[in-house]
Amino acid sequence: MIIIGEKINSTLKAIRPAMESRDSAAIVDLAKRQYEAGASYIDVNAGMFYDEESEILQWLIETIQQSVKAPFAIDSPNAKAILAGLKANKNGKPIINSITGEKERFDSVLPLVTEYKTGVIALCMDDRGMPETAEERIEIAKTLIKRLAGEGVALSDIYIDPMVRPIGTGSHYGIVALDTIRTVKSEYPDVHIACGLSNISFGTPARRVMNQTFLVAAMYAGMDGAILDPLDKRLMTSLYAAEALLGIDEYCINYVTKFREGELEV
Amino acid sequence: MIIIGEKINSTLKAIRPAMESRDSAAIVDLAKRQYEAGASYIDVNAGMFYDEESEILQWLIETIQQSVKAPFAIDSPNAKAILAGLKANKNGKPIINSITGEKERFDSVLPLVTEYKTGVIALCMDDRGMPETAEERIEIAKTLIKRLAGEGVALSDIYIDPMVRPIGTGSHYGIVALDTIRTVKSEYPDVHIACGLSNISFGTPARRVMNQTFLVAAMYAGMDGAILDPLDKRLMTSLYAAEALLGIDEYCINYVTKFREGELEV
Repeated sequence: MIIIGEKINSTLKAIRPAMESRDSAAIVDLAKRQYEAGASYIDVNAGMFYDEESEILQWLIETIQQSVKAPFAIDSPNAKAILAGLKANKNGKPIINSITGEKERFDSVLPLVTEYKTGVIALCMDDRGMPETAEERIEIAKTLIKRLAGEGVALSDIYIDPMVRPIGTGSHYGIVALDTIRTVKSEYPDVHIACGLSNISFGTPARRVMNQTFLVAAMYAGMDGAILDPLDKRLMTSLYAAEALLGIDEYCINYVTKFREGELEV
Repeated sequence: MIIIGEKINSTLKAIRPAMESRDSAAIVDLAKRQYEAGASYIDVNAGMFYDEESEILQWLIETIQQSVKAPFAIDSPNAKAILAGLKANKNGKPIINSITGEKERFDSVLPLVTEYKTGVIALCMDDRGMPETAEERIEIAKTLIKRLAGEGVALSDIYIDPMVRPIGTGSHYGIVALDTIRTVKSEYPDVHIACGLSNISFGTPARRVMNQTFLVAAMYAGMDGAILDPLDKRLMTSLYAAEALLGIDEYCINYVTKFREGELEV
């Protein structure tokens, strides 16, 4: 699984003050702990700071890469802020989070993907708004994949986000997400899937359980990446168990090792 | 989900003494607690008592049905013992657990299914032994379904058990079970699936986590029944979450209710 650690995000109240006060130690600590817990990428988002977004994104990347070698997921819809992040980045190939099928956003973000040869998360939405059905999501995903590939982006650099909606707002949204994942992954095995996992449980009680449940089902559907909290040990336990169950973790070696290291929360 | 409560089983050391000493109170208590925890059927197994199997099965059924109204899953490969159970039964339509494609077993158990109009769990194995692949399991399942249906057994009275093997003994056994479930359920939507769930984790550490993980993936694959421990609150929590996620529990009503009642273990 490609794990994108979600914790350094200006929409999260716990970390925002550390961004405001440029508290390097707190930011580095959170990046390091996510990396050590298994994050493949560290997501950085400064979107809540509006005019200062570019400056703070740049500062986050410069600060983190002094101590942590994980590549970044540069999290912004704003080409100017993404560019500031890309210029600051020295931690290897980043992922731009994200592009959509919306004309203006696609046209402004695409040149950054191709010029900096980054990975890119492509959200299943376009100028018609948020899609309702799996069929609409799949159609948008295919269009995005074809357009990106047509511009020279490798399939393995594309991460489709099916735009998970909360199960509490519609009983079909779990199956909608799972069917989208299954179809896109089976038609484009080289394309990655990267869900914003916790959207599924927004507004639902016992959110952690719902996140774990969705993670397992989505991995079986073919999801090979997720934006999640790698410091949630119970979630990571579900992830290791699913990798063992699905034969991704051959001979359950990682699962057994994590158990022996006391890393499984049961 | 059709939940078959697995606890009254002579292979389980904790309960065997209660069978030996004909401890009605202990047996009734265990049946009642499983029923109250959501068991649709109470499995009764006295197979470890060999010569006394029929007598103890009869006693279990007579004892339990005085206090608990759940129907039984009469758990034996032995037609004589099953018959003793069927004659004793007054709790409505039972399930016979189980038949296989083995000639001798099929021929001896089938007349009980048709005469007593029971449900029947059909294990994916035959005289060639335990199958290795999903394809072999699917072929055996189809043969069993066709033969049973040919004898007048309704599709909705058939419960296919894919014969889950431990993930610790082969990294492919998770996918083998899940693919079997998915294919059988999609080709025969009226046929039920009933896995012996905990087989997946035999010999693996943190068994409960692996059972929960398999439960969720199998439900997404189409499993609508399982032989499990309904007193395992964390497992039942995964079950309720999966029902909500998959839209089986519309509007998450049961999930939210269980949360409010303090029944979710998170």
